[in-house]
Amino acid sequence: MPRIDLNSDLGESFGSFAFGDDTAVLSSVSSANVACGFHGGDPRGIRATCAAAHAAGVAIGAHPGYRDLAGFGRRFIEYEPGELTDEIIYQLGAVQALARSVGSAVRYVKPHGALYNAIAHHEGQARAVVRALRESGTGLPLLVPPDSVIERVAEESGVRTFSEAFADRAYAPDGSLVPRAVSGAVLTGEAATAQAMRIATTGRVLAVDGTEIAVRADSICLHGDHPAAVRLAGDIRTALEGCGVEIGSFV
Amino acid sequence: MPRIDLNSDLGESFGSFAFGDDTAVLSSVSSANVACGFHGGDPRGIRATCAAAHAAGVAIGAHPGYRDLAGFGRRFIEYEPGELTDEIIYQLGAVQALARSVGSAVRYVKPHGALYNAIAHHEGQARAVVRALRESGTGLPLLVPPDSVIERVAEESGVRTFSEAFADRAYAPDGSLVPRAVSGAVLTGEAATAQAMRIATTGRVLAVDGTEIAVRADSICLHGDHPAAVRLAGDIRTALEGCGVEIGSFV
Amino acid sequence: MPRIDLNSDLGESFGSFAFGDDTAVLSSVSSANVACGFHGGDPRGIRATCAAAHAAGVAIGAHPGYRDLAGFGRRFIEYEPGELTDEIIYQLGAVQALARSVGSAVRYVKPHGALYNAIAHHEGQARAVVRALRESGTGLPLLVPPDSVIERVAEESGVRTFSEAFADRAYAPDGSLVPRAVSGAVLTGEAATAQAMRIATTGRVLAVDGTEIAVRADSICLHGDHPAAVRLAGDIRTALEGCGVEIGSFV
Amino acid sequence: MPRIDLNSDLGESFGSFAFGDDTAVLSSVSSANVACGFHGGDPRGIRATCAAAHAAGVAIGAHPGYRDLAGFGRRFIEYEPGELTDEIIYQLGAVQALARSVGSAVRYVKPHGALYNAIAHHEGQARAVVRALRESGTGLPLLVPPDSVIERVAEESGVRTFSEAFADRAYAPDGSLVPRAVSGAVLTGEAATAQAMRIATTGRVLAVDGTEIAVRADSICLHGDHPAAVRLAGDIRTALEGCGVEIGSFV
Repeated sequence: MPRIDLNSDLGESFGSFAFGDDTAVLSSVSSANVACGFHGGDPRGIRATCAAAHAAGVAIGAHPGYRDLAGFGRRFIEYEPGELTDEIIYQLGAVQALARSVGSAVRYVKPHGALYNAIAHHEGQARAVVRALRESGTGLPLLVPPDSVIERVAEESGVRTFSEAFADRAYAPDGSLVPRAVSGAVLTGEAATAQAMRIATTGRVLAVDGTEIAVRADSICLHGDHPAAVRLAGDIRTALEGCGVEIGSFV
Repeated sequence: MPRIDLNSDLGESFGSFAFGDDTAVLSSVSSANVACGFHGGDPRGIRATCAAAHAAGVAIGAHPGYRDLAGFGRRFIEYEPGELTDEIIYQLGAVQALARSVGSAVRYVKPHGALYNAIAHHEGQARAVVRALRESGTGLPLLVPPDSVIERVAEESGVRTFSEAFADRAYAPDGSLVPRAVSGAVLTGEAATAQAMRIATTGRVLAVDGTEIAVRADSICLHGDHPAAVRLAGDIRTALEGCGVEIGSFV
Repeated sequence: MPRIDLNSDLGESFGSFAFGDDTAVLSSVSSANVACGFHGGDPRGIRATCAAAHAAGVAIGAHPGYRDLAGFGRRFIEYEPGELTDEIIYQLGAVQALARSVGSAVRYVKPHGALYNAIAHHEGQARAVVRALRESGTGLPLLVPPDSVIERVAEESGVRTFSEAFADRAYAPDGSLVPRAVSGAVLTGEAATAQAMRIATTGRVLAVDGTEIAVRADSICLHGDHPAAVRLAGDIRTALEGCGVEIGSFV
Repeated sequence: MPRIDLNSDLGESFGSFAFGDDTAVLSSVSSANVACGFHGGDPRGIRATCAAAHAAGVAIGAHPGYRDLAGFGRRFIEYEPGELTDEIIYQLGAVQALARSVGSAVRYVKPHGALYNAIAHHEGQARAVVRALRESGTGLPLLVPPDSVIERVAEESGVRTFSEAFADRAYAPDGSLVPRAVSGAVLTGEAATAQAMRIATTGRVLAVDGTEIAVRADSICLHGDHPAAVRLAGDIRTALEGCGVEIGSFV
């Protein structure tokens, strides 16, 4: 019986500023990437998200990002690597404490936004992230893109990794994501559901040129920041379960 | 042989903004109240402070404050108690992770600035702080003013407390501190050194009216935010050691 | 023909964090209290809000608040008055520049949230706000609660004021608002619409004990932070216009 | 009689966090680049700096930077250009209001740190800055590096520019600054003073290979963020005045 994890970003609201529909998304995923306060998330919301994930049997991941609330961690910042390491240890420890306060625990780490994109190729920032994981002494694994610089650096350093694929993004024949600016880069509705099914059951996707390529994926990334994404997340879970795919955390 | 702890706030610099003379103060104290990033302190500086304290054999305390970098945590904010609890758990976990990353550990918690002042009498905020300590599950003790609301609430909840006195503040006959706005409220030089000696060796101070009063103190609070304070901290340590008082952490 | 202004808070979104339904509310009001970046609002959203208000013929007001994004400016902060003055001048200048950049101008100032509540009775903060208005040299008027400390202090200092009433809040017989915690404090639907009509056409409201009391109001404050409030704002405008009340800015 | 402007960054302290020795630097320069609150500077300090500069007859410039207090605006951020434009208009308006409140006015704009470095070559951010200057409608000139992208873009758009040179930085034969990481990149003491003299009296510097090259400079940039820099600023002013160079703002 095939099995896959579904992950999504949660707990990103900040104070009176809501972000995403956490309640709906939580019912679709098996792993919750919980914001850590730097790109989004405040202690109260982080804790509530941990409690809700714990109650729903969803694995809690820490989701650290750049210190950029105004940019939601979505724009590249040229960090000094040592500073990035320490900011990630800080964020990780903070969320671990809040998870413990509700009787749960952080099980993995998935970097957020521009940091996630940067460490796929930026060696200095990738090493900074891996160093944070090692120096925090938690033994937690990383959730990252397959065949990325961060995956290689982590493995070389003895940090476990799991890899993810995207249901709603078109793939180029070389396995990279088609840039969002390109027409057809974002899949919706049945196309995205079909891609999720293919990933979960065959470990492959159809690239934009029609060729079938392998995509290593322990998890599929879903989104919850707009209503259509929330619906899609539910549809994907329903479709996967309907075909006998077991949904469950990779940890 | 009498024994007392000396504590001071450290690690409060933020990015390129320096605050205090940590290196000098560290050589005078046995306990370092390390900023947690909300009123001051950034992950890099927090970690460096933990490393320096650890190397110097100085106990590390977490020093959480209001989320108010612009006000340095020195002005009262009317928090919703649940939010305050979660912000303290967050700050505590963050500093614990950084302390662990340098092979050390947080040993106690001392609230900062306006929060410290508030919980001496504000029951709601005092309960919020105690709840944070309990829910964090760390079993860490609190360093607080003696005979305060926070001391009572903590003890009722099973959170251990240690109490501190001030070398450089004049006491009223009822044991409270003379408000800073009052002339003579701040002691300097030999007067402060003499008060530290008296606290450490007799557990008493001379109040402003000349009466001798008892002051329960496991620790004496020193300051490092201006050159005269740094010199005074050194003088007090030298004077105490010269009289055979052992300086050491209360934990 | 009776005439009244309708005002609401706008431009409070921050980066990727949405707040309120500005487009819908803008079609109901004649005055837009535009956030200034301290409790909410970022430069891009502030400018877009100014442009939209200008295009809709809605007067732009600056809506400065405490420096407290995490608390949305809704919790009291014990400011040093001089600092509050300078923070308001800063916020006001920033929004004026953005309003000018879209060919418009700020026409009035309405303090936000906990600051608005504080200056109704807190003389120090009220004086700080009035000093900001005077020292900015803009000659702009203040929109404030009637019979408040801020109204008195402003008038004594030569700063013009306009006063507002609330459609959706119950009044006590002495003209004060019934605290939100009290049952029946918040009016909805037809009760709120009826109160708006009464204010606009008679300058009076029915207090909770049934007595009719005078409420000086140049403007009625509407809300847009949840869907029911947005609908109510539209209903009130429709009802007022249906009865021949002219809706227009007080400036 | 030769004449040159001397400029330095001021008003960068934030709350309780001091930065630089503004009082000392102010006595050496003719132009003060006043922080605008995003990389450093708070309203109170900005206003005090404007007042001090005004009293000293020093021209006030706005010194906007990236929204990055933790990084002091010294690390590159990949801004969306429209957002950068609006953030600069916001910062400019805020400082203009505070300058007006002390009876003075902003006379020019010099971008800060990583933004200053970026717009020397990054066309998108350079255009964003120029658009901010144009849309703010203030007619203020820019202080920028000579022969840079920002200088060209500004001139094409009708925004006046003035250019500056560095007394304490070694120049490559092509007129660019030797990167700080290279040995000998930073000049100190007499070497820096001699370079300032040469710039002011001949418009030329000796490049690292000994060739003499032209450097267009309406102003020389001095620093005040460490004691040696402050002393150097004073020495340079003394040396220039001793040789009959008139020190005065370029505006």
